[in-house]
Amino acid sequence: MCRRDAERIYVGKERDDHAVPQEEINLMLVRLAKEGKRTLRLKGGDPFIFGRGGEEIETLVEHGVPFQVVPGITAAAGVASYAGIPLTHRDYAQSVAFVTGHLKENTFNMNWEGIARKDQTIVIYMGLKGLPMLCEALIKHGLTADTPAAIVQHGTLPTQRVITGDLTTLPALAEEAGLKAPTLIIVGNVVKLREKLGWYQPEPNSALSHRSPLEAADTLR
Amino acid sequence: MCRRDAERIYVGKERDDHAVPQEEINLMLVRLAKEGKRTLRLKGGDPFIFGRGGEEIETLVEHGVPFQVVPGITAAAGVASYAGIPLTHRDYAQSVAFVTGHLKENTFNMNWEGIARKDQTIVIYMGLKGLPMLCEALIKHGLTADTPAAIVQHGTLPTQRVITGDLTTLPALAEEAGLKAPTLIIVGNVVKLREKLGWYQPEPNSALSHRSPLEAADTLR
Repeated sequence: MCRRDAERIYVGKERDDHAVPQEEINLMLVRLAKEGKRTLRLKGGDPFIFGRGGEEIETLVEHGVPFQVVPGITAAAGVASYAGIPLTHRDYAQSVAFVTGHLKENTFNMNWEGIARKDQTIVIYMGLKGLPMLCEALIKHGLTADTPAAIVQHGTLPTQRVITGDLTTLPALAEEAGLKAPTLIIVGNVVKLREKLGWYQPEPNSALSHRSPLEAADTLR
Repeated sequence: MCRRDAERIYVGKERDDHAVPQEEINLMLVRLAKEGKRTLRLKGGDPFIFGRGGEEIETLVEHGVPFQVVPGITAAAGVASYAGIPLTHRDYAQSVAFVTGHLKENTFNMNWEGIARKDQTIVIYMGLKGLPMLCEALIKHGLTADTPAAIVQHGTLPTQRVITGDLTTLPALAEEAGLKAPTLIIVGNVVKLREKLGWYQPEPNSALSHRSPLEAADTLR
């Protein structure tokens, strides 16, 4: 939707393939602003929920660059709607927690204590690679092995695929299905509702773009 | 944005003043659909995050009414952006939990065990009335008394007001400020970032509508 003559700079990230490191993105925003350009940093999802927007505007503040922040629909909300899995529900979940399943040197940057609660929905961003370890960690910290769980590939897109199981079965089911990033994992009793409430029938061969939201949106203009 | 001749039915809720009870809303959607009408259930925020969208579509499924769910920007994301408080941040919060502070017979419908974590941001929906008890509960379950906390009135609107303090001081500060619902409470070290990152200067006397997002959006069309 930007003007046709706008310069588009791709800085998008996929796992292990960051076109531009985060610090360079921060400084690029400063440089472009100082050149007098109106600059839009476009992201998939919400800038303040695992979006590193805080770090970007910290750099802007340090360099005296004025800015506005526009909220977005975080992956958890988009994926939940299109997978038919309410994140909270009076009968099943009184709270919802968003965490990342990103691995760093094969361990999680996360203290699981307290996250695993039977009355809480857990949404895990970026967890495909660590899924077996994630399920193990959640069982170790108190969830029962038969807690319902889902992994969603390309949520909201025509290439969306939803695999459901429980903390014991999901890793093998996901492996078997050959899912591709980006994915989102939802753990908790609300996942059972999908059987009844799943409404979105993706048409993978439709004319719509098959690019992931990250590819499509994580662009600096 | 709907057609000018569309019938608009207000079902919006404010605390202790539910124009239409939830069950009636569920059945109204069924009735209108069965009358052959294209019906839009418009809400503030996201339908699947404390929006009771799950209950509404369960009723639709039970009555064989087809539907789509459109995700929205949940209050936590909107308010965080306009208050300059990132919900996650590499240095301060590796996860974020959304809970409700709704009181039922003067106690919380919430098990606080595990929610109170020093590396987790906590966002509390509908917590104005219970704020003193909320702060007490979080301290009792492990947060230090000086954990930063903010309460935001009318987030994202020209009438936005942000009061910051810590778990000890916030209840008195909020009382003194005479805040009005709807509010959102954010607890955690990320709140400190507002001092540096707060960018939105509301203009309470601007020509924009002063209606709350709930009043403006929680309408069944």
